[in-house]
Amino acid sequence: MSPASRYTYLGPEGTFTEAALRSLPEAATRELVPMVSVATALDAVRAGEAAGALVPIENSVEGGVTATLDELASGRPLMIYREVLLPIAFALLVRPGTGLESIKTVTGHPVAQPQVRKWLAAHLPEAGWESAASNADGARLVQEGRYDAAFAGEFAAATYGLEPLVRDIHDTENAVTRFVLVGRPARPAAPTGADKTSVVMWLRTDHPGALLEVLHEFSSRGVNMMRIESRPTGEGIGRYCFSVDCEGHLQDRRVADVLMGLRRSCREVRFLGSYPRADEVRPTLEPGTTDGDFTAAADWVQRCMDGRG
Amino acid sequence: MSPASRYTYLGPEGTFTEAALRSLPEAATRELVPMVSVATALDAVRAGEAAGALVPIENSVEGGVTATLDELASGRPLMIYREVLLPIAFALLVRPGTGLESIKTVTGHPVAQPQVRKWLAAHLPEAGWESAASNADGARLVQEGRYDAAFAGEFAAATYGLEPLVRDIHDTENAVTRFVLVGRPARPAAPTGADKTSVVMWLRTDHPGALLEVLHEFSSRGVNMMRIESRPTGEGIGRYCFSVDCEGHLQDRRVADVLMGLRRSCREVRFLGSYPRADEVRPTLEPGTTDGDFTAAADWVQRCMDGRG
Amino acid sequence: MSPASRYTYLGPEGTFTEAALRSLPEAATRELVPMVSVATALDAVRAGEAAGALVPIENSVEGGVTATLDELASGRPLMIYREVLLPIAFALLVRPGTGLESIKTVTGHPVAQPQVRKWLAAHLPEAGWESAASNADGARLVQEGRYDAAFAGEFAAATYGLEPLVRDIHDTENAVTRFVLVGRPARPAAPTGADKTSVVMWLRTDHPGALLEVLHEFSSRGVNMMRIESRPTGEGIGRYCFSVDCEGHLQDRRVADVLMGLRRSCREVRFLGSYPRADEVRPTLEPGTTDGDFTAAADWVQRCMDGRG
Amino acid sequence: MSPASRYTYLGPEGTFTEAALRSLPEAATRELVPMVSVATALDAVRAGEAAGALVPIENSVEGGVTATLDELASGRPLMIYREVLLPIAFALLVRPGTGLESIKTVTGHPVAQPQVRKWLAAHLPEAGWESAASNADGARLVQEGRYDAAFAGEFAAATYGLEPLVRDIHDTENAVTRFVLVGRPARPAAPTGADKTSVVMWLRTDHPGALLEVLHEFSSRGVNMMRIESRPTGEGIGRYCFSVDCEGHLQDRRVADVLMGLRRSCREVRFLGSYPRADEVRPTLEPGTTDGDFTAAADWVQRCMDGRG
Repeated sequence: MSPASRYTYLGPEGTFTEAALRSLPEAATRELVPMVSVATALDAVRAGEAAGALVPIENSVEGGVTATLDELASGRPLMIYREVLLPIAFALLVRPGTGLESIKTVTGHPVAQPQVRKWLAAHLPEAGWESAASNADGARLVQEGRYDAAFAGEFAAATYGLEPLVRDIHDTENAVTRFVLVGRPARPAAPTGADKTSVVMWLRTDHPGALLEVLHEFSSRGVNMMRIESRPTGEGIGRYCFSVDCEGHLQDRRVADVLMGLRRSCREVRFLGSYPRADEVRPTLEPGTTDGDFTAAADWVQRCMDGRG
Repeated sequence: MSPASRYTYLGPEGTFTEAALRSLPEAATRELVPMVSVATALDAVRAGEAAGALVPIENSVEGGVTATLDELASGRPLMIYREVLLPIAFALLVRPGTGLESIKTVTGHPVAQPQVRKWLAAHLPEAGWESAASNADGARLVQEGRYDAAFAGEFAAATYGLEPLVRDIHDTENAVTRFVLVGRPARPAAPTGADKTSVVMWLRTDHPGALLEVLHEFSSRGVNMMRIESRPTGEGIGRYCFSVDCEGHLQDRRVADVLMGLRRSCREVRFLGSYPRADEVRPTLEPGTTDGDFTAAADWVQRCMDGRG
Repeated sequence: MSPASRYTYLGPEGTFTEAALRSLPEAATRELVPMVSVATALDAVRAGEAAGALVPIENSVEGGVTATLDELASGRPLMIYREVLLPIAFALLVRPGTGLESIKTVTGHPVAQPQVRKWLAAHLPEAGWESAASNADGARLVQEGRYDAAFAGEFAAATYGLEPLVRDIHDTENAVTRFVLVGRPARPAAPTGADKTSVVMWLRTDHPGALLEVLHEFSSRGVNMMRIESRPTGEGIGRYCFSVDCEGHLQDRRVADVLMGLRRSCREVRFLGSYPRADEVRPTLEPGTTDGDFTAAADWVQRCMDGRG
Repeated sequence: MSPASRYTYLGPEGTFTEAALRSLPEAATRELVPMVSVATALDAVRAGEAAGALVPIENSVEGGVTATLDELASGRPLMIYREVLLPIAFALLVRPGTGLESIKTVTGHPVAQPQVRKWLAAHLPEAGWESAASNADGARLVQEGRYDAAFAGEFAAATYGLEPLVRDIHDTENAVTRFVLVGRPARPAAPTGADKTSVVMWLRTDHPGALLEVLHEFSSRGVNMMRIESRPTGEGIGRYCFSVDCEGHLQDRRVADVLMGLRRSCREVRFLGSYPRADEVRPTLEPGTTDGDFTAAADWVQRCMDGRG
């Protein structure tokens, strides 16, 4: 297939990311290519070798997937076009016939560990944990005999000839991972009414209270911030950029106005896209923040300029 | 002369307002008509019987001239086109031959009183004060013999056949009265680079913190507020509108942006004009608030919409 | 009577101020002394010649009574102990036998004029207005024959041998004047649960955004501001102090905390008293702002200091 | 040795954490016990089996060490007593005699990877990366022959019989890891004048603009925030707590006042300690925020209550 019909994803096969990607209808007609890292999945898109990449960006237990946040904040610009929410539940995969009592070593991706910590403490308190490069890779290492059991999605069992000894393991109720489908910059899809907009902002460093000011750009237009995460810029301890998701679409006047304000008040802003919310929740608008309110205000200012205020 | 060449002013002749009006170059070619009150001076403009009206609006000792603030805030809209600053110093006007020791009664406009209070206490502690309808009217009442002396501008002496017994009386150094030339709404004069913009705002009453929000509309665009005065709306104790002067001209992008924000976040806004500052002081702009910054931000948002962000 | 049982008030007799003062139960046992101005009424208190002074401070149509605001903001400190609200309605007082058609001149206090302006325009459009030193003084001038009619409280008719030709004149519904009983500084009366606290604040002039900061001191403790008025400090155009009333009593922890914040963030603050609200309305408290919340927070910080956080 | 003289740390031996711990003078007289995870290192302290634990908390390239942030935010309270800053530079450790050209597989801790990514791409573009449980563990795996090379601290070479083939590898200049010495809650050490205070805050979820409010608690007392990181609370996507470091010590009045404000305005606050800054930088105080200013403000409020304001 051509690059235009190719999607990369954070591999290997059998991970939650693949499961999330396959939940998208268009995935059925795409070539799905697992990559060894978020960086390589995204670089394939940057290089034009793929039309999109599905990568995890947020996990309700572990927080931001920092590799994704940092890759989107630097290098050649990319844009988010879709988000996918996937409930997180692990299966404990073992070679057929293995019983719980014989498990001495377990493996899994480092972000899986905190989500199964309590379960491990309760059921396998003696088992040693070692990290694998991915949950699927952990399954492979169990297949190869290097570990006794791996935490992974149940869907990975068949791929690696394993069986799920325990299902639906998750320390936290409602654990969800959020994935995004990333592509090269283009015109965002039309607003659906339940949209989300993502940006990265670098504050003016010579400016105390700069974070407060920037948050006011959102609040003064009634635009609700849904996620804010600080990430080090690599310029030294205490230097951050902020990754933010807010309600609404760039074509909503209030969101465009926020972005104009951010562009002026920040050292730098990177627009990461406006895209449909996976949960399809529509925002509650505050008085004075509808498109009509913005249009009326702009008209009024024009009338004042014309002496007809 | 035609109404188009007529200016009204807060009379009578011989007041500071007339002196302020005559300081305007165009006054030389206008018919200058004294009126009995701010309201009648402005109503003549509203009715098309005069092209402009000069009225006091602020006094560095007494604060806002409330009649002017309230007249501009209500009724048919008017606009400010010029401001004039006039240092305030009173002369004590007496009938020729009167000495200080024989002064038992003094008069003057109520707003004059606090500006000569200390002088009175020091030099005429026994004299009784009665208010006159205007400083010039006080001079007339002295001419008629009703009072012994009047505080007024020295320029009023000749008009009323009086002489200045003491000159340059003012309790406060740097006392200044600010006058505005008001006309019917029209396109504001072009920006000079040292401009002022005036508005009246009515907050959304169902909204605590509304004043804070509105002040943020100014501060977030780096627009310096030069004057803020609350005025009762007449809807009951505790209900106010706010009369505000800020730096800059409606054609400055940052000011237009503030006004758009006010229009959205307030119950009502009335634009009272953009006009040259009498002191010709140019604003110091904060980073991100020049016209260029606004244009660049709008361009960037447009590029984001087009997929070229 | 001794000074301890004497109250001064803004005279002369027959004004609304006297009526407000007489509405206080303790007035019955006090010697009530009219004074010619707010300043002299207050100075008598400062000098120990009276225990209290009743003066107007706010008018729902005209706004702050600037003489009172300025007197309280400067000179030897005074404190407010009570407030009185008095509905404003004027009677048109005439010499017995005078009819509406024969009234050519009317008088009254300057603050009365805007409250009867519409009535005058409708019923006596030709009558000339001249200001009197007080409403009562206007009545006296009618008695003396200098004017045909005076706007004053109906209660003033008897004092000056006049009769009310028209009653209950007021352009605005719900017009109210607020008076305050002022004394020398002492311990405020105990909280009633429906209290008001008044302060005057001078912002640090070298500090842009200073007004915003100061408003945050109130909002961050959930203390509702009921009145804010800017007053010129007399240091030049553009230099203001702010006179503020807020809900609550200095003994409420949230109010004390606001005042501590103001004291630190302002150039100067003057405490003008905590006293019962005339309308007896109790505040709605926001979460985290009760006395119990403040005590719990202080206790917690102490526990943290002790290593028991 | 007794638990009182035992420090645990994120092991195994030979990691940067051990190097950071050994930089503390008191480490010389303590028993230093490597643990397999941040959680187990801290749990030993909670259980009274060790007096302290040294764990990484922040990395200028990778941001917060989420395991540490989350452990400190939950479970039985712990407190930070010291911080250590350690410049990050990796050595590429190999078995003696190995040359760069023969390296096919490399390993290291997942947080090492982004710090050596560029170096790898430039010098070993073909080498496969697999994550190890720690940098030291990676060294052990090289010793055992499972991988060809490991990124680790140069100090780890001797422990594992390896040699540093390349030294001082770090993609980013000034990369630093910050470690904290954690113990059970006790009275914080006395202020040094260059201190830091750490807290975790959970916002009131029913309250839009809550983050803005909380940031104002800091800014209104002139307390500079040095780090803010959002962490998911595990209650679902979009639910965060905020981990914050600010300048100053709990015994500084301005910091105690911030904490009182946070306690009132947040759903929950956890105090994580006041301790000396490793960089020994003293804060620049804003006007009105010294201990003297707080004392003076409290005294003034007390005087107001006593009628001597």
